[in-house]
Formats: sequence, C-alpha cells, structure tokens
Amino acid sequence: MNNQKEKLVKSITSRDEDFAQWYTDVCRKAELMDYTDAKGFIIYRPYGYAIWENIQAHLDREFKRTGHENVYMPLVIPESLFMKEAEHVAGFAPETAIITIGGKEVLQERLIIRPTSEVLFCDHYSKIVSSYRDLPKKYNQWCSVVRWEKTTRPFLRGSEFLWQEGHTIHATEQEAKDEVLGMLDIYNHCGSDLLAIPFIMGKKTDKEKFAGAVDTYSIEALMHDGKALQSGTTHYFGTGFAKHFNITFQDKDGVLKPVYQTSWGLSTRLIGAIIMVHGDDSGLVLPPFVAPTQVVIIPIQSQKEGVLTTSELIKSELEKINVRVKLDNSDKTPGWKFSEYEMKGVPLRIEIGPRDLEQGECVVVKRINNEKIRVKINELHNLVPALFTSIHQEMYEKALQNVTENTRPATTYEEFKNLISTKPGYVKMMWCGNQDCEIKIKEDTTATSRCIPFEQEHLSDHCPVCGRKAEKMVYFAKAY
Amino acid sequence: MNNQKEKLVKSITSRDEDFAQWYTDVCRKAELMDYTDAKGFIIYRPYGYAIWENIQAHLDREFKRTGHENVYMPLVIPESLFMKEAEHVAGFAPETAIITIGGKEVLQERLIIRPTSEVLFCDHYSKIVSSYRDLPKKYNQWCSVVRWEKTTRPFLRGSEFLWQEGHTIHATEQEAKDEVLGMLDIYNHCGSDLLAIPFIMGKKTDKEKFAGAVDTYSIEALMHDGKALQSGTTHYFGTGFAKHFNITFQDKDGVLKPVYQTSWGLSTRLIGAIIMVHGDDSGLVLPPFVAPTQVVIIPIQSQKEGVLTTSELIKSELEKINVRVKLDNSDKTPGWKFSEYEMKGVPLRIEIGPRDLEQGECVVVKRINNEKIRVKINELHNLVPALFTSIHQEMYEKALQNVTENTRPATTYEEFKNLISTKPGYVKMMWCGNQDCEIKIKEDTTATSRCIPFEQEHLSDHCPVCGRKAEKMVYFAKAY
Repeated sequence: MNNQKEKLVKSITSRDEDFAQWYTDVCRKAELMDYTDAKGFIIYRPYGYAIWENIQAHLDREFKRTGHENVYMPLVIPESLFMKEAEHVAGFAPETAIITIGGKEVLQERLIIRPTSEVLFCDHYSKIVSSYRDLPKKYNQWCSVVRWEKTTRPFLRGSEFLWQEGHTIHATEQEAKDEVLGMLDIYNHCGSDLLAIPFIMGKKTDKEKFAGAVDTYSIEALMHDGKALQSGTTHYFGTGFAKHFNITFQDKDGVLKPVYQTSWGLSTRLIGAIIMVHGDDSGLVLPPFVAPTQVVIIPIQSQKEGVLTTSELIKSELEKINVRVKLDNSDKTPGWKFSEYEMKGVPLRIEIGPRDLEQGECVVVKRINNEKIRVKINELHNLVPALFTSIHQEMYEKALQNVTENTRPATTYEEFKNLISTKPGYVKMMWCGNQDCEIKIKEDTTATSRCIPFEQEHLSDHCPVCGRKAEKMVYFAKAY
Repeated sequence: MNNQKEKLVKSITSRDEDFAQWYTDVCRKAELMDYTDAKGFIIYRPYGYAIWENIQAHLDREFKRTGHENVYMPLVIPESLFMKEAEHVAGFAPETAIITIGGKEVLQERLIIRPTSEVLFCDHYSKIVSSYRDLPKKYNQWCSVVRWEKTTRPFLRGSEFLWQEGHTIHATEQEAKDEVLGMLDIYNHCGSDLLAIPFIMGKKTDKEKFAGAVDTYSIEALMHDGKALQSGTTHYFGTGFAKHFNITFQDKDGVLKPVYQTSWGLSTRLIGAIIMVHGDDSGLVLPPFVAPTQVVIIPIQSQKEGVLTTSELIKSELEKINVRVKLDNSDKTPGWKFSEYEMKGVPLRIEIGPRDLEQGECVVVKRINNEKIRVKINELHNLVPALFTSIHQEMYEKALQNVTENTRPATTYEEFKNLISTKPGYVKMMWCGNQDCEIKIKEDTTATSRCIPFEQEHLSDHCPVCGRKAEKMVYFAKAY
C-alpha cells in the first residue's frame, strides 16, 4: 500500500475539535490543493481544479446567456494607470506585487500585477466607445489576480486566486443598476442550483464596500463553525471611474455623457465555502451537480466472473446519460477505496460483487448519510439522476436549516454582544446607518456587518448601539 | 455613422503591398485585439478571445479524452527553484519579468513570473509521486506566461501570451515517447479538423530544440507570404529534469527509478496563423468550425412586413442545429454591414429582403469567394452544415496547395541560397546533422531549419553545405 496516501487518508482532525485544522486536512487529503515555496501561492490540484471548472461552466453559460462576452486583459498594470482613481488605489496599493525588472533591465515604469482590473477595462473602454451605438459593453474575464496577503488560507485568502471579473458600461443609470442586481441573482442561483448553498443577498454598508464603488452587493454564506463567508460581490460605480478615465459617449440626443459602470466577481473562495458548508468528519461532501466524479463504481472480488464486465457496463450506461462516473479497479482493498472516495466526497458509491450479480443487483451508497440502497442494475439509469436531485435538495435544506437555526435577532446591544460571543452564526439587528456603530461593534466583538439583507424585518425603532433612529436591519457575524 | 468604425473598416492595406501592415490592420480592424500602455501586453478583445475559446474547447476535449487532467500552478516561481536546471535557465532567464516588491516590502527572494512552468510541475511531482501506482501523471494547464520580448507583434510574439502547457511523467521511456508523439498528433488534427491549416510534423534539430529537452517536435505552418510559423511543440525530457528535481518512484520490481517526462504547448499564436494562412484583402477569413460567428443574417429593408420575423425564424432554426448565428438589425446600411462581416471573416452571410421573401428564398454568400447561392429558406438547415464542411475542405486544400507549390528541393547549396532568397516557402535539403551547417545557412540567408519532417525523402547522399554524408532531409525557411 502507498504509505504516503495511507497516512493522508487516516489522520483527519474532527470538525468540532479543531475546525481550522479539519479544514486544512480536508484541503490536503481530498487532494484539492498543495502548498508551494511561494507563500500564499497554492497549486490547484486536478480534483480541486475540476470543481472550479464545473463552477466556471455553469457561470460562463449564464454570463453568455445574458449577453456577456469574454475577453482577456493584460496581467500587468503600468503604475501611472493604476494610480488614476484615488479611492481604488487606497484600497489596493498596500496589497500589490510589483514587477521592477524585465529582460534583465530595471523597468522605467513599474508594473503592478493586477489585483483587479477596473483600470484596464476603463482605459480600454475609453478608447473603443464613442457613441450610444457602442453601448452596452458587457465583458467578463476568467483569470488569476494577485493580492499580497499576510495571513493566507487555501481558497479563502491567498496571494493569488482564480476568479472571474465582469466589467460593464451602460448608457443609463437604470441599466447599470439592473446589471448589478441581475448578476447578484446569477451568483445566488449558482448557490441554490449548483453548490447547494443558501446565500443571504444584500447590500454592503459603506464601511464594507469595494474601493471606488457607490454600492456593493454581496452573497453571504454561513459555514459549519458559524462564521460567515462573503462569497461573491457586485459593484455599482455610477460615473465615478468614467469621469476619471474619460469614458464618454455621444447619446441619441447629441449630448456627450459619461457611462454608468459595474463590476462583479466570484472566486475559488467558493471551493472553501463548499468544504465548510457541507464537509464532515470523513472529509469532503460534494453536492452532486458540482462534483467532478458523481459516482464511483467499486467492484468487489473483481476477478470473479462477470464482476468487472458488469462494472464496465454500468459505467458506460451511466456515461450515456452524462453522469461523471469513475470505475476503480486498482489493487487497493475495497475498504480502503471506500475511505478514499468518502474523503473526496463523491456523492454516490456503487458496490458490485459476485453475490449481487446473481440477483442482477448492486448496492448504492449515499455519501451524505451512508444510506445503502439495493437496486436492480437495470434501474440505475433512473435511480442515479433522481438521487442527484434528492441529495442536492437534502444538502441545500440542511445548509438552510443551519442558517435558520443560527440567525438570531437582538434588540439591545447587551443581547447582541452576548449572542455574538456565545452563539455561532448571524445576529440581525437594526442599525442607524453610521459607521461609528459598526466600528464599535467590531472593536467590542470582532464581528462585522455582513450585509443589509434584501429581506428586511423591522425589529425595533432604534439602533441598539447608539440609540439613534434606525430603519435598516443588518446581518452581523464573525467572518472569514 | 460611427466615425471611428468607418475609419477602421475602410482603410486596410493590401496583402501584397505590405504584408506586415496588412496583418496589423486585420488584427485591429477585425477587432481581434488592442494594444495597451505596457509594451508587448495586448488585450484579447471578445472576437479574438472567442476564437481562442473555440480552440480551447476542441483541445480540452481531446486532452481529457486521452486521460489528461487540468490543474493550475502558481503564476510565480521563486528564483532559487527557477535556477535548478541549468540549460533551462540559460534558455529562459534573459526573458524573465521579476517581482521584487510585494505588500510594499522588498522581497527576500525574488519571484519570476512563469515563462513556462516545468520547474513548478517538477517540484510538485517530486512531492506527490512515490510509487508506480502514482504514475502516469498527465496534467495540463490553461494560463498566460510572460517572456520579455524586445520586438513584439500581436499573437505572434508578445511579452504575455495565452497558452496551454501539458506536463506529464511516466514510468517508462516508451510511454513518455508515445505521449510526445500522441500530443503532436492531436495538435496536427487541430489544424486539419478545426483551423483548416495543414501542418508539417517533424522533429526539431538540436539547435532549435527547447531549453532542457532531449527531443523537441513541432508542427510548422506556411503563411501567405511564404514565411513559416512554428505553431506548437512537444518535448521529450528523458530523465533530465527528474534527476535534478528528484522525481523518483518505487517500481514494481522494488527499485527506485527516475520518471520519464514530457511537456507540450500550443498558444494564441495560432490566431496569427489563421489570419496569415486564410486572410485576404477584405480582411479575415475564418474556417467555419473555429469561427465565433458562423453565419450572419442581414435583413434588407427590415421594416417591410415579414422580413424581420423571417430573419428571426431563420436564426432560431439554425441555433437549433447548433450553428453560431448572429442577426444584425442595427441601423447601419446593408453595404456597410457586408464590409464589416467580411472584415471579420464570417464564413456565411444570409441576405433576406421583401422580394426574396415572396419566393420563400434567401441569398447565401460565401466569404471565401463571394459566391452567391439562392436557396429556399426551408432548405437552410441542410445547406448550411453542408457548406461548412465544403468550405472547410476548400480552405484546407487551398492552404495545402500553397504549401505544395512553395516547397522546393535543393541539391546544391547555391540552388538552396537562390531558392530561399528569391522564392517564398520551404526549401527541403539533405543535412549532415551538424549545427555548423545550420549556423552557416542562417548567417548566409537568415533561414532556419524548421524541422526534420516525419515524411522523409532521399534527395541526395551528401549535405550540400559541407559535403559530408547526409541521411536526413530538413525543411528550411524564413520564419516568424
């Protein structure tokens, strides 16, 4: 037996014992990623990257369906271009990596590795847009970005991560605002339809919004340990960038106007969300529609007549209905394989041995709860897709229940502080709209405002922190 | 009318007048790319990027079909890791871009932006492979790389370009060698099946091979101006890198052995090949299977009853059979639209006006030769796919004819020099195997050996340059 692998599979920390260590163990032992000698730069291993590819495929289809086009902008931003928008610079300059040498010579102008590409898109748009006929431009790019981080964690916070960044410009404020909410909705559906993760959708407070944005919206997820994870953001820029970068168009009325702009991004951070929402003490648990391998077939005593050929037949039948299926006929023991694919979170395992074969049956095991189902082999093509749907639903409901059970209202600040320090999850509370209160909350409790949710409730008339009038309910939580 | 666009479409240099200027004009005016303020870093605009997406989709399917998995390695290589393999370093160090500052601090170890990722894969493989059970590993990644170039041209030579890089390790020499030739074959089929480009497949001479490789193979294409373009390469490394990076495995016989390694890459350079093989004085000409828009429908007098609704019907009927189709009902004139989509190389244009409608007909125009076909609207779903196949074939044959007509044998060095300086294309000649002769040829003529083709001929017994015995026939050409 492979010693390294044995060691990897067997020693996994319990979730409730040490959640952070459990997370790292799953990342490594499910072979999602590996570290490198460059701090904060990770390797996306095939199994981790394949999850990202499935997220990409889903989103890319949605982006194109809604009229977006993919482009690729340069990796680097000349320093002078980067410095054009002050708020934006203030937000990102502390985290940049800078190329100072190229082709053995010191560069005359330093090049910033893109931490995000607003300024590149602005510069390009200013050159290619002149008329209302040129609008809207709805571009997206899939790439990696670099942000120099002091403390890093796989998928959650790294010096380099993979993402998509959409950048659009529009003739009217309304169209740009619709874009920002439309893309948030697409992100939200990625959660409910693909990842089995219920998100809270809402608007960020000014304190938490993107550098340079008028409004930032986010989807927020709740992890198993009760901490929140910002999982995707969309930004409305108004005409701020357009004015700095001179992106103007002649409108139908002959008047020269600045464009209204948006950007929106979602990253490999979602892999972290999948792990922390669904995983358990046996490792990863993958929602069926995003799982790189949806079914693993494990033949028992595969040297016995018919076992291997039937396994292969099942494989090809499932492939015909587009199931992502793997047959493992390696020389490891069945028990070993069971653990390995549990660690990797494969949604369904099919076991088939000589005795099953006699009955024309096999055993289907659900990763989510280890439930075993005896089934006729010729019924698999009906059962498997139905199980995917029911497992997805079950995972979504369970995650939603975690949110519901761990979202608590507070109407006094004492209650808030008590809840946030003793209970996992969100505390919802009215807020006056002043940053002072957010700052005080963070200082007192380390919790931050996650968002002003679209689904509002009126819990009280006043801000429990300062006593001023309050009209908005905010979700607060400790967060990644 | 949009003034900028008018200017763009109307002024294109003739191919035969100034091929280099024609090329740049097409790149810009077909809206494939744009320049940026960072020299050699280009923007892949939606139309150019969509061509790349189609190449990606084709190759990615082939890579996965042949058992390869995608990964993502870091953008950066710590300098000490980069320096591990001397030949490789010698080849790439002069072209590197280097990060020296991160998070406002000077880095203790400088980080090289990947010019290629051999050393990153080697380092990773050395950590994850220990047994024959772990082999083969067949990884690929889609990413951009940075090579600091003094003279740059869109798609052909840039400081940053998009590519895929495959990196595989194997237990046996034979398996690695099969991989190298197998991937070359997949590249070759990308030419014949997707791009309508006939490639010459062969082995590079030692002088022209990749830094660190035992053997390099390439596919070579011939451009309209008679210059060759190396369009993809595959490399066999033997155990060279494995020994430097300590990538070893315990074989079935219990012996610790180094792995046999390969790499292979193909880039956005292919977009340049498409332009220069197929383009004409009206702009780009795209092979149907790689074209982002395969059919453009242009309604004539679309305000007349039935014209627009029929156009929309045709669009949706063609979409049902997976044709990539666009309907242009903008307020530009039909003639203007004709020029625009000619410039963009859209393979088929469908014109439909009130008089066509009376007959239940429309006009289909082939970009390749402007041939007009009157066709019943209800026959389009048969005609269009058939036209794609015949146009593809016609484009391939034409490109092949260009290769055949411009490949000439030489049996004396005088003849060689005369041909290479007066005629476009390849000169095939016997070669002794010595670098001296290649160097002399390059000094005398600027031509280089393109490859030792798999399809050999015996033109003479001796190397025309030095008179020594010669067993190999080589293709020479001036090249991009």
